[in-house]
Amino acid sequence: MDSSAPIVVQKFGGTSVADTERIRAVADHVVRTVRHGERPVVVVSAMGKETDDLLRAARDVAASPPGREMDMLVTAGERKAMALVCMAINDLGVPSESFTGSQAGFLTDGTHTDARILDVRPDRIRAAIEAGRVPVVGGAQGVSDTNDVTFLGRGGSDTTAVALAHALGARSCELYTDVSGVFTTDPRVVSEARRMDRISFDELLEMTANGCPKPAMRSVEFARTHGVDLHIRSAFTWEQGTWVSKEEEFMEQAIVSAVVHDTDEAKVTILGVPDRPGIAAGLFRSLADAAVNVDMIVQNTSADGHTDISFTVPHGDLAVAIPVCERVASEVGATRVTTDDGIARVSVVGAGMRSHPGVAATVFETLAGNGINIEMISTSAIRISCVVRQDQVEQAVQHLHDAFSLADGPKLVD
Amino acid sequence: MDSSAPIVVQKFGGTSVADTERIRAVADHVVRTVRHGERPVVVVSAMGKETDDLLRAARDVAASPPGREMDMLVTAGERKAMALVCMAINDLGVPSESFTGSQAGFLTDGTHTDARILDVRPDRIRAAIEAGRVPVVGGAQGVSDTNDVTFLGRGGSDTTAVALAHALGARSCELYTDVSGVFTTDPRVVSEARRMDRISFDELLEMTANGCPKPAMRSVEFARTHGVDLHIRSAFTWEQGTWVSKEEEFMEQAIVSAVVHDTDEAKVTILGVPDRPGIAAGLFRSLADAAVNVDMIVQNTSADGHTDISFTVPHGDLAVAIPVCERVASEVGATRVTTDDGIARVSVVGAGMRSHPGVAATVFETLAGNGINIEMISTSAIRISCVVRQDQVEQAVQHLHDAFSLADGPKLVD
Repeated sequence: MDSSAPIVVQKFGGTSVADTERIRAVADHVVRTVRHGERPVVVVSAMGKETDDLLRAARDVAASPPGREMDMLVTAGERKAMALVCMAINDLGVPSESFTGSQAGFLTDGTHTDARILDVRPDRIRAAIEAGRVPVVGGAQGVSDTNDVTFLGRGGSDTTAVALAHALGARSCELYTDVSGVFTTDPRVVSEARRMDRISFDELLEMTANGCPKPAMRSVEFARTHGVDLHIRSAFTWEQGTWVSKEEEFMEQAIVSAVVHDTDEAKVTILGVPDRPGIAAGLFRSLADAAVNVDMIVQNTSADGHTDISFTVPHGDLAVAIPVCERVASEVGATRVTTDDGIARVSVVGAGMRSHPGVAATVFETLAGNGINIEMISTSAIRISCVVRQDQVEQAVQHLHDAFSLADGPKLVD
Repeated sequence: MDSSAPIVVQKFGGTSVADTERIRAVADHVVRTVRHGERPVVVVSAMGKETDDLLRAARDVAASPPGREMDMLVTAGERKAMALVCMAINDLGVPSESFTGSQAGFLTDGTHTDARILDVRPDRIRAAIEAGRVPVVGGAQGVSDTNDVTFLGRGGSDTTAVALAHALGARSCELYTDVSGVFTTDPRVVSEARRMDRISFDELLEMTANGCPKPAMRSVEFARTHGVDLHIRSAFTWEQGTWVSKEEEFMEQAIVSAVVHDTDEAKVTILGVPDRPGIAAGLFRSLADAAVNVDMIVQNTSADGHTDISFTVPHGDLAVAIPVCERVASEVGATRVTTDDGIARVSVVGAGMRSHPGVAATVFETLAGNGINIEMISTSAIRISCVVRQDQVEQAVQHLHDAFSLADGPKLVD
């Protein structure tokens, strides 16, 4: 390999390495990258559902397994995947070497099952690259200062890839997924959905939705902080995917980039909450302690000293959330708790909307004009989200995609 | 745990940790050992057939996977098992910590897939023991001086256990198997078969046979060289198993300790081989190069300048052995090659027969007197093996077990 060739980190998730056939396809892709004049550094997750299987085995043998042992256990998953990917690359005639997180120089704190990276010292990775070998690194792994194996948590392979790209000064970090990039909306709902060439880190962070690639938030934040350009693409096509980079690098800026939706949430409402300071804080602290993932939160202006608090949670968290809410409601003297799992969330996302307050009005008019009732509204600087009935959400997506002419390409800030 | 309590290494093979239920049973056994006043150090193999599964995956992705990557791959197996065993021990209220071969201080050469131990520096294991924690070590693993993961080969967990017992000055090394010790013969064939209390390393090394525990030969040799007492026993009973130690420690010495048999071999004969120096050497070098495991070799005295060479191989190696033999036979001008897979081997083993040449005569008389024809004979200082028809081997075992009165306990050297 040409020693001046650009270094590119390529991260393959569990789906991309789910079986030996896919592993051979990944190896083929990596080898083509080499032939194409780049120097790839590969990061892999565990195969398919292997991490889930390991966690199930742990639950079978112990009620509360120590974190240190959980990390020893789950890192067996990436170890297997990385060795197999490496063998498959070698088999295609390109020398390759696999590295654990420790061997790759990932020094972390000792917070087992959710360790933080303290430093990346990829000396062995650099040596392998310079010797013309393709390094294959186990994702989400590190080593603590007591020489114990640590795991960065679910989705940690994205973080490994971005941190390694930064430490190596790689030209970019490619995140391979089963879709070929980030689309203006879910292509399964709107056939005219268009793959975007570029979006900003902030936009990607707002895009947790159906049919949308979901790099771990932590890795996107790391990339934003350190200016590591991400390239979200498919391993099974040579098309360009979607580049994610800092906003100021954009030549042109869309007002609205994408319409996304999420049907995996339910709404919880606590009615008649006395309007005293600290009640909301107490409620959401209790939910956080119960590991409930709260998404949108809406509290209306108080009327007659009482208010209603609504929020959305993933369906899977509802059973845990309800008793917590009922306990808090009873403690503070609220009227009652209602839940609704027939809702969905639709959001428009775009960095350009910061300077275009009219976007919210267009969203509300579009939905109202098509007979779609809005149950909750929540906004950030670059996102407007509405909760609507679940059976109307696909209509909502289609109408909003049309209203902002997203199929035609970026509508620029003037 | 009492800091003066004896240290005992306990090695559990793949069958003992085949699923999460068995892993909990192993943990229970280890915890009882602690309550019993000993300080166990646990060594585990990969779960059940996991190593085979990993090797199959490797073959699926690559024609000739590099040894370094094979070792990275297969060590994922023990890693998983050791973390789960460790969790299960913790779950029973006894603190435990798992260690890779590298963390346990196994320094090896760089011969991947079949590395040799150069040194064992179990500092972290000692620290864990002194802190009252049960160390659980991944078997067959090490690290080379280039910081690469190495594997000691199949059966390497026995070697790990014995080497660790030696390095820690353990009182003994317990090898857990699915039988409760070493028997005077296969209990499935002879109901009066008796579990032996003690045998010598040399005797155990001669006992590769059906129904007999088979610690890796290398580990038994290591134990013999370094005087590590082995205790072969079952994890699922508190009975004593069979102790294996140096001969001079015996109070009494049996002439014949056991009758063992093996039905997994086939016989190959090359007829009419010209009696020139170097022909046998060339044949067995060619077979070794083809990775054929040759067991018994018999060459008759030459008559009229030609001889016959016979040897036995495992059934699984026969298909590879035949073309090699036919090529060599044609090169040297031998008459022809015949094979016979209807044979079996029966052996009597005993350290005391060294000084009792009459044993061979008793063996031959017993077989002949019961109408069992002997097709091949091979002897060592402490073993006499005969090849007979496979359908007569169980009779042979029964008659020999009777002839030496093995059900009654050791027959002593007078």
